[in-house]
Amino acid sequence: MVAEPVELAPWECESLLRSQVVGRVGLTTPDGPSVLPVNYSVVDGTIWMRTAPDSQLGRITAGTVVALEIDEFDHGRHRGWSVLARGPAAALTEPDVVAHLERVWPPRPWAWGDKPTYVGLRWATLTGLKLGAGWDPRHETEVRRTV
Amino acid sequence: MVAEPVELAPWECESLLRSQVVGRVGLTTPDGPSVLPVNYSVVDGTIWMRTAPDSQLGRITAGTVVALEIDEFDHGRHRGWSVLARGPAAALTEPDVVAHLERVWPPRPWAWGDKPTYVGLRWATLTGLKLGAGWDPRHETEVRRTV
Repeated sequence: MVAEPVELAPWECESLLRSQVVGRVGLTTPDGPSVLPVNYSVVDGTIWMRTAPDSQLGRITAGTVVALEIDEFDHGRHRGWSVLARGPAAALTEPDVVAHLERVWPPRPWAWGDKPTYVGLRWATLTGLKLGAGWDPRHETEVRRTV
Repeated sequence: MVAEPVELAPWECESLLRSQVVGRVGLTTPDGPSVLPVNYSVVDGTIWMRTAPDSQLGRITAGTVVALEIDEFDHGRHRGWSVLARGPAAALTEPDVVAHLERVWPPRPWAWGDKPTYVGLRWATLTGLKLGAGWDPRHETEVRRTV
């Protein structure tokens, strides 16, 4: 049972990106590529992640290209979708911007720990795929943001 | 509701790795880090992925460090686990080895398409985390390999 990969339109990718709360951040490190789960939110066209200043993500140099991947798999039907956002990221330090972000929609980490650093990823590319035509991932996603 | 991250033991990571059928391959590309879903299997201590020869994964130079990430999230309980395998990868071309792999446990792609290239990732590091103590991800995973 295999299905044809179908490209998602940019607006579908953005809609899915805004519907989720956890993804995987992809980084290039001296030890090779790293892929780690992270909670995020999307505010003002930027993906925001909270982290510790001494984490791999917290230590990135401003402008480093970072990826965020989200997906869902349906193991019973061998079906799924994925979206990849990629662009330059930077830690956020301006108190005004942090205050705005915290008012509007701060990422809410599931993991305990001091995470005072906000890292913003302004995506330059946003691409996605689903397996099989004739279904809409946005109608079947387990997660939808609520206020 | 936040939980403390707890490190998984190497044998727990390997057990989870062997229980799953789909993960995300992390690569370093000229356009930055890439994270893409992939079906895989584990045979003889190596992660095997099938791909097209002209894909990002199919084009890697032998010895390039590649990552494979697997995880599961419980959105209701804000809980989850993740495992990251990382090590040198190479496309497999020897007919004997391909024949062995196809007899034993070939990765079965969900996505339609010609995927004659097998890429093997021999992990040098295998690390993982779960959120919160007192539960065993291996008992709650949705996916378990069956023969």
